[in-house]
Amino acid sequence: MDERPIAPGGDPYGIHRVKEPLGGLPQPAWRVDNGFSRLFEGEVLLGVETLNIDAASFTQMEKEGDPAHIVLRTVADRGKQHNPITGSGGMLLGRVLQIAPGRPAGEGLAVGDRVATLVSLSLTPLRIDRIKAVRPASAQVDVDGEAVLFASGAYARLPKDMPERLALAALDVAGAAPQVARLVKPGAVVVVLGAGGKSGILCIAEARRTGGPGACIVGLEANPRAADDLRGLRLCDAVAAVDARDPVAVRKTVLAATAGREADVVFSCVNVPDAELGAILATRDRGIVYFFAMSTSFTKAALGAEGVGKDVDLFVGNGFAHGHADHTLAMLRDMPAIRALFERRYG
Amino acid sequence: MDERPIAPGGDPYGIHRVKEPLGGLPQPAWRVDNGFSRLFEGEVLLGVETLNIDAASFTQMEKEGDPAHIVLRTVADRGKQHNPITGSGGMLLGRVLQIAPGRPAGEGLAVGDRVATLVSLSLTPLRIDRIKAVRPASAQVDVDGEAVLFASGAYARLPKDMPERLALAALDVAGAAPQVARLVKPGAVVVVLGAGGKSGILCIAEARRTGGPGACIVGLEANPRAADDLRGLRLCDAVAAVDARDPVAVRKTVLAATAGREADVVFSCVNVPDAELGAILATRDRGIVYFFAMSTSFTKAALGAEGVGKDVDLFVGNGFAHGHADHTLAMLRDMPAIRALFERRYG
Repeated sequence: MDERPIAPGGDPYGIHRVKEPLGGLPQPAWRVDNGFSRLFEGEVLLGVETLNIDAASFTQMEKEGDPAHIVLRTVADRGKQHNPITGSGGMLLGRVLQIAPGRPAGEGLAVGDRVATLVSLSLTPLRIDRIKAVRPASAQVDVDGEAVLFASGAYARLPKDMPERLALAALDVAGAAPQVARLVKPGAVVVVLGAGGKSGILCIAEARRTGGPGACIVGLEANPRAADDLRGLRLCDAVAAVDARDPVAVRKTVLAATAGREADVVFSCVNVPDAELGAILATRDRGIVYFFAMSTSFTKAALGAEGVGKDVDLFVGNGFAHGHADHTLAMLRDMPAIRALFERRYG
Repeated sequence: MDERPIAPGGDPYGIHRVKEPLGGLPQPAWRVDNGFSRLFEGEVLLGVETLNIDAASFTQMEKEGDPAHIVLRTVADRGKQHNPITGSGGMLLGRVLQIAPGRPAGEGLAVGDRVATLVSLSLTPLRIDRIKAVRPASAQVDVDGEAVLFASGAYARLPKDMPERLALAALDVAGAAPQVARLVKPGAVVVVLGAGGKSGILCIAEARRTGGPGACIVGLEANPRAADDLRGLRLCDAVAAVDARDPVAVRKTVLAATAGREADVVFSCVNVPDAELGAILATRDRGIVYFFAMSTSFTKAALGAEGVGKDVDLFVGNGFAHGHADHTLAMLRDMPAIRALFERRYG
């Protein structure tokens, strides 16, 4: 493979590769430049092996027709795997082929490193030469192709001490635990909605570690099997089943589990609409509600808190936090029971 | 008017008056009980004088037909002025007719007090006996009727030292300034998007007061007249016109106005969609973006921050904060230039 020449003018956010509309950012753009015969300053060129398609996007493509065909069409049209119907992307696995000058100082990336991107495919310039396999069970597509990461684009080097599928499953929700570590205080009352799912379990584990033995950790999980998994980890003071869309039931369940104490922090990881008010009602005055769930409605959260007169801080979950990939992979190393559960489920 | 008998079982959030679906909360409910021949514990009965309809709701009703007729139909169907198309309500002005036992301690409310509700009409049980006038310019409807406030329902006593229209205009955005006071530190770099609007001006004024003379306050406002009003207040270090939907332009404009410093806190008060990314890009690492605008998209904010790798705290604006009405009315008293501008605009 030939070394590509470097062009000046690379923007850390990738504005230089946006074709439609010119001058915009790559994520909202209709089309980006996926010509990699030259690179721009600050870029990393990746040889792409696998696309990890966003679950909602993959389901949509399966309904529409042949996902392999639709992926090829989307990338040809847009220069990126940005599903025009769901608006979502996914992440990719690949190997570093070339590193242009102008990268952030001290990152220590080397040609040949295996990496997973932590920014969405919806903003990542991508060229596909061939589709090798489609694996519907994991929404993965194996390809021959190339992609570019901008200077601002987060990625993780794949660790050598765990299976790649396990690492990928954890990296997919890498933002969860670091945000929990920031917001939970020792001895806090913490409630997690959707606590038996992937991000929910990481929230519970981090809340127990940060909150300590004096914390009261309550996991709400409607799926009986996921609730059993959660109980098996012995991290929660209580695990209860409740419909997250029923705010009155959520509040009652929480108060029953905490001997009447409202939550200092609630994390909502439940991927159903209409779970905003339950999270708000379970929270104490001046407490925090952190919405990780992408099904959250901005107006329902804002008007919900105002309507019940709750003076709480409402957060839009940010999937990016400094060091989030290392933080989350280290949890799998430090917590064998979580690792075993994730290997069983996602490995 | 007769004293109404008091029934037990009043819930602070008003669950006891929800008819469809039973057991739910009044805001998401389709229909609430607006029979006021008896009151429940914790309720306040109000004689209603004016409905201040939410602007989006009033516009929708004007397009559909006669707002007076539609208001009567909605209240007959739902027991509350909860526009089924826009989902929004408004607030009301009235006088206290009766106070049931079981109210919060020490509130000092008295029969005869004139009050404005600070919770949405979309959750307030209301009966209309007669429509007296419709004032389209201010989206107000004068009525004879009655309403009930629950124990959790926020309200403000109307001050005697300023015109009611002025007080109402300020109370409508009472949540803004208190949140600014909590988040702005002395000497901070603060950016307000939509800074020339009603909530934007209150954010700017509070940011200057809390941030002090060493703070750098930047107001972005696309409307030339609103920008001139803002300049006239002499509270900003810079006032600039920019399209909030162009994230690259927003970032460039902010950096030009601050000599290259990113914002510690950005408040988004601009009521257009697609302003999320501009606010995020203008914010420093570990800074805060506070979204007051109801046009904010949860997913655009969450995916936007992740896509550009910005480790910032994203807040859903909460219109309720302790003491927010008193805080905001006091600003009008303490800041004669703001009061004069609001009287000219909304008085």
